[in-house]
Amino acid sequence: MSLRNTLHADRRALSRFLSRVENQRDSVAAQLAELYHAASDSIVIGVTGPPGSGKSALVTALTKLLRERDLKVAIVAVDPTSPFSGGAILGDRIRMRELAGDDGVFIRSMASRGQLGGLAWRTQDIARVLAAAGFERVIVETVGAGQSEVDIVNLAHTTLVVQAPGAGDDVQAIKAGILEAADILVVNKGDLPGAERLLSALKTMLEMGHPTKTADDEALWMPPVIAASALKSTGIEELARAIDAHVRHLQSHGLQNVHQRNQLRAEFMAKLRESVLRRVIDSTTDDELAGIIERATKQRIEPQQAVDRFLDSFEIHRKRH
Amino acid sequence: MSLRNTLHADRRALSRFLSRVENQRDSVAAQLAELYHAASDSIVIGVTGPPGSGKSALVTALTKLLRERDLKVAIVAVDPTSPFSGGAILGDRIRMRELAGDDGVFIRSMASRGQLGGLAWRTQDIARVLAAAGFERVIVETVGAGQSEVDIVNLAHTTLVVQAPGAGDDVQAIKAGILEAADILVVNKGDLPGAERLLSALKTMLEMGHPTKTADDEALWMPPVIAASALKSTGIEELARAIDAHVRHLQSHGLQNVHQRNQLRAEFMAKLRESVLRRVIDSTTDDELAGIIERATKQRIEPQQAVDRFLDSFEIHRKRH
Repeated sequence: MSLRNTLHADRRALSRFLSRVENQRDSVAAQLAELYHAASDSIVIGVTGPPGSGKSALVTALTKLLRERDLKVAIVAVDPTSPFSGGAILGDRIRMRELAGDDGVFIRSMASRGQLGGLAWRTQDIARVLAAAGFERVIVETVGAGQSEVDIVNLAHTTLVVQAPGAGDDVQAIKAGILEAADILVVNKGDLPGAERLLSALKTMLEMGHPTKTADDEALWMPPVIAASALKSTGIEELARAIDAHVRHLQSHGLQNVHQRNQLRAEFMAKLRESVLRRVIDSTTDDELAGIIERATKQRIEPQQAVDRFLDSFEIHRKRH
Repeated sequence: MSLRNTLHADRRALSRFLSRVENQRDSVAAQLAELYHAASDSIVIGVTGPPGSGKSALVTALTKLLRERDLKVAIVAVDPTSPFSGGAILGDRIRMRELAGDDGVFIRSMASRGQLGGLAWRTQDIARVLAAAGFERVIVETVGAGQSEVDIVNLAHTTLVVQAPGAGDDVQAIKAGILEAADILVVNKGDLPGAERLLSALKTMLEMGHPTKTADDEALWMPPVIAASALKSTGIEELARAIDAHVRHLQSHGLQNVHQRNQLRAEFMAKLRESVLRRVIDSTTDDELAGIIERATKQRIEPQQAVDRFLDSFEIHRKRH
């Protein structure tokens, strides 16, 4: 049985394989390459927004709708176990439990602690494995705040930015920059006071931030702003339609290729950074490295100088052909 | 005149030099090494917290107090130009203007966009230059959310985590993890409704999260929770005393050395990562690199495989002695 078929058929094999990918075991490199070609038709949906905006409830509601359409859905929840939101996310995971027991749904949490930089690309690998395992929609959910979270959502075909009245960022704090990341803006908890004000503020910002669409610029996507309530299940249908429209937009304008090329370029550079470091580290013992750092500290050598001296003990050059 | 004296005497020279450091021009490496030894007595104070918690107003109030004590203060504001808070920070910068015109205050903004990972260490370099330039307190302010912001505050001797009632994170969203980063917790906007509740919630969390202090564990620091109002100038004196107490605590228990060693270790690894990548990139032309990525995309080679093939064209090994 091929790896792909195994991952299709066996959930525990899938979970184990994802753990190996997450821990970046070199042993899976060949398998990831094998799966790479099998992952192409899946749609990756990124969901981000501040803590308290109800992202997980929204993802749950959206997933239920996609399941009614008989699409298999995988959810990757990037848990920032950083000081600032660990606890809430845990609660969200519990709320998502109503999806348990459905074979067409797979939920995977990833811890972000200590994986700075590399995290986005490991998430990318995870999303590819899930796509190859037969999930037609892969939803990547992350608390939106730092650059690494932005990188994660940029992996998606369609990115939802979720806001809620009174939660997380206020209107002052979201401002223009948010438009860059969002393909679709969602005002969640649309029944709460302040939702109307937030909705119209976001629409105004979008209008100001985007150039006016002209006849010869059909490829320009204008992010819609959608009012939803995950708890009352309103606006979810409209959200799903907006996602479809965005994906069709990408496809009909050949933008999927542009997106993929930019993404692969960034992924190549990020993986190059990790791999070249590993090659240097691998030819140094842990004790040796610890000794170098210890001496640099004692002799008060400036860190960059210590690094340069260490690297000078290496031969690094292109091979002659 | 030595570089240090120039930076002491000439603000414009200082600004220019900081720009060169920020853009990581290799040309300053020797100067950074020279300044490294001059930077030791300055105290670095990290300030973080969610958008809307009033960090900048608090930093402004604290700075005024430190100025009354005749201490020179530099403020490094890390502007996350990420989608999620760009605008608000700009407003904060404007609010800080009331410090303008005071020769004993220097304010520097750093953009974080696109500098993922390396940002913390560039901030470290900036803080060292400012220390060498004679600033006795260097305050590094950043929006607390992603891992890179946590890394930045970890550079500080003393880290303040700022919360405000109703802003950014709610009590559910801050939870236990926050205790790890905070040396001092500040409830800002202490006059707003909900401040009392937030204060007692934070105290309870601290008590639950920290082991009970016993007589033989004097080195354990219990983070105090301080109610302040930057706008009404209350609690600022108490905050300054808490910072002093924390610094004395570090000094009297030799913890400053431990802190410094851990920090240098992390800095060494981060700078190694950047430097080794640069050595590889430098022996490849831009066109060549673009061609490799283009071919990998066209031939649908999995990115890690493309990276490995590229690195296989290099000789990377320790020199024989």
